[in-house]
Amino acid sequence: MLMNRDNSVLLIVDVQAKLAPFIHESEKISANCVWLAQVAARVGVPVVVTEHFPEKIGGTLESVRAVTPDARYVGKQCFSAQADGCLRGTEVERRPQVIVCGTEAHVCVQQTALDLRWAGKQVFVVADASGSRNPANRDLAFERMRGHGLEIVSREMVAFEWLQRGGTELFREVNRDFIR
Amino acid sequence: MLMNRDNSVLLIVDVQAKLAPFIHESEKISANCVWLAQVAARVGVPVVVTEHFPEKIGGTLESVRAVTPDARYVGKQCFSAQADGCLRGTEVERRPQVIVCGTEAHVCVQQTALDLRWAGKQVFVVADASGSRNPANRDLAFERMRGHGLEIVSREMVAFEWLQRGGTELFREVNRDFIR
Amino acid sequence: MLMNRDNSVLLIVDVQAKLAPFIHESEKISANCVWLAQVAARVGVPVVVTEHFPEKIGGTLESVRAVTPDARYVGKQCFSAQADGCLRGTEVERRPQVIVCGTEAHVCVQQTALDLRWAGKQVFVVADASGSRNPANRDLAFERMRGHGLEIVSREMVAFEWLQRGGTELFREVNRDFIR
Amino acid sequence: MLMNRDNSVLLIVDVQAKLAPFIHESEKISANCVWLAQVAARVGVPVVVTEHFPEKIGGTLESVRAVTPDARYVGKQCFSAQADGCLRGTEVERRPQVIVCGTEAHVCVQQTALDLRWAGKQVFVVADASGSRNPANRDLAFERMRGHGLEIVSREMVAFEWLQRGGTELFREVNRDFIR
Repeated sequence: MLMNRDNSVLLIVDVQAKLAPFIHESEKISANCVWLAQVAARVGVPVVVTEHFPEKIGGTLESVRAVTPDARYVGKQCFSAQADGCLRGTEVERRPQVIVCGTEAHVCVQQTALDLRWAGKQVFVVADASGSRNPANRDLAFERMRGHGLEIVSREMVAFEWLQRGGTELFREVNRDFIR
Repeated sequence: MLMNRDNSVLLIVDVQAKLAPFIHESEKISANCVWLAQVAARVGVPVVVTEHFPEKIGGTLESVRAVTPDARYVGKQCFSAQADGCLRGTEVERRPQVIVCGTEAHVCVQQTALDLRWAGKQVFVVADASGSRNPANRDLAFERMRGHGLEIVSREMVAFEWLQRGGTELFREVNRDFIR
Repeated sequence: MLMNRDNSVLLIVDVQAKLAPFIHESEKISANCVWLAQVAARVGVPVVVTEHFPEKIGGTLESVRAVTPDARYVGKQCFSAQADGCLRGTEVERRPQVIVCGTEAHVCVQQTALDLRWAGKQVFVVADASGSRNPANRDLAFERMRGHGLEIVSREMVAFEWLQRGGTELFREVNRDFIR
Repeated sequence: MLMNRDNSVLLIVDVQAKLAPFIHESEKISANCVWLAQVAARVGVPVVVTEHFPEKIGGTLESVRAVTPDARYVGKQCFSAQADGCLRGTEVERRPQVIVCGTEAHVCVQQTALDLRWAGKQVFVVADASGSRNPANRDLAFERMRGHGLEIVSREMVAFEWLQRGGTELFREVNRDFIR
């Protein structure tokens, strides 16, 4: 089924200070994570943020922190947040659709996304909000995830499916502030 | 199975005046929608045209209107024409093969096409007659739809499958007027 | 399973005089059809050649005719050779693996290949020996056929799978005359 | 499931002296095979190396030999190492996940990988450590293998999945020596 805001949770993976500068198209990726977090807040979708060894790799980027005041932040040691156990008790456990973005696309994003799929979730990875240091790795990850039935989407697909229809006050707001 | 003109309906999605100018390769996309509508008329395939909030986004392009005098026009408020309900009672409901084109490929075309697939239709999206403002969104939509078993085709595939064979008067006409 | 020369038949589709000049990379495509026919002859794989309305579109290219003295030539009127019925009684009917090449990739090659697949054959379409006037059509055809479980291969894959092993006299001959 | 070092064996296919110079991006491919063998040794994954008619095509590259002192070397005559029988009694037979790299991607790598898949293995082909003389053949092989459920991965995916988590001494070593 399409993404539905009542079923969705946004999972932002490891957008951290000491990793971000090395990511291909880093500014676009982090800006799109911010955009997704803002749209999620506006339509009422909960947000979970993972941080991989923040004491080593740094905290989540300030731009993301600023727009996720209500998000649940969890630390992890396994590359796969699902295998780590850090998602237990979060909205990721409660909601059937997980929209995943962040870095690196072929490491923590992919391992988390595949494990969530095998745990029974419907998983959507946001291509224009996910990156790797080397874009060839990112592209291989997208193809590999497609092969397992995950959906590789764009941030606009997420927004339009969460909104479902035009003509509402909510659509007008999101369209004016984020899409135009 | 291949596309067959007795089983097919052509669904033109939201080729509207205030959206068209912003679509990548807009002229090619709308010209190919016109081409498909003309071939459909020649081989006897019914046409349905959707308009999303025409009072805001404008009516269907005049070039498309001019070649669809017998088409059924329906307005909609949901991005997915299938979810909206506007296709009820149209040929889309009656025929098993729906050939979809229009804009935006990653929003209304994709949502409609996926919902039609999940409603049991065999869905063919015409790549060279479907567009988005940003072509990266269009390409992600085509890949995502492929993952759900939809067929991404070209306008020529549609015409040759509807015609099925050479040597007929119908083939000569369509070949002379549209393919050569 | 891999291609096996005892199970295979080579089907060359519509490499005809009045169509060939308009095909993208026409010389490469027809040269590779010739190459496949020669390798087929050397390893003992039968060849079937289709011609679409030869009285209008011309006979098969002389270069192909010259290397297929033992091939079965059949005329057809449907774009799909399988739907046409012209393959009845040929080796295509008797052998489970059909290796398809020719033109146009998105019309007669694709319609024939899909119909053969749906008739229960294992179908391999040779990418570097199949073409369309517009290469975008060819690429869409390859993706569409992949979605139905057909295998898009290269001419070298065909040769190496037919040969199966090195060290034989047959391998030395084919390697010396065709691969090096 | 993801790659796991307790389940994995690394299979290096035909990285041989008289073939290597003709491979597209030969130096990158062989360097990445060396890299994978080194990481495998560090994390305790066994390595098997095939050589196709070494008396004709030469032995495995010295750079690979130097880092595989404990590997099992096997000769073969069939292009598919699995069909050849040379993998019998090796770790490939005992472990369920086979990580494959080497040359040529569309001949011996592909035939071996497909046959291993059909024999029940979970097969991962390392894209940036596998090559062909003509890169178009390599790309067609990757797509064809995807169609059969094989996973096309990158060397970094292999390393991070074998490591599974940060914070360990093993991770620090591999990260310092191979990833940074």
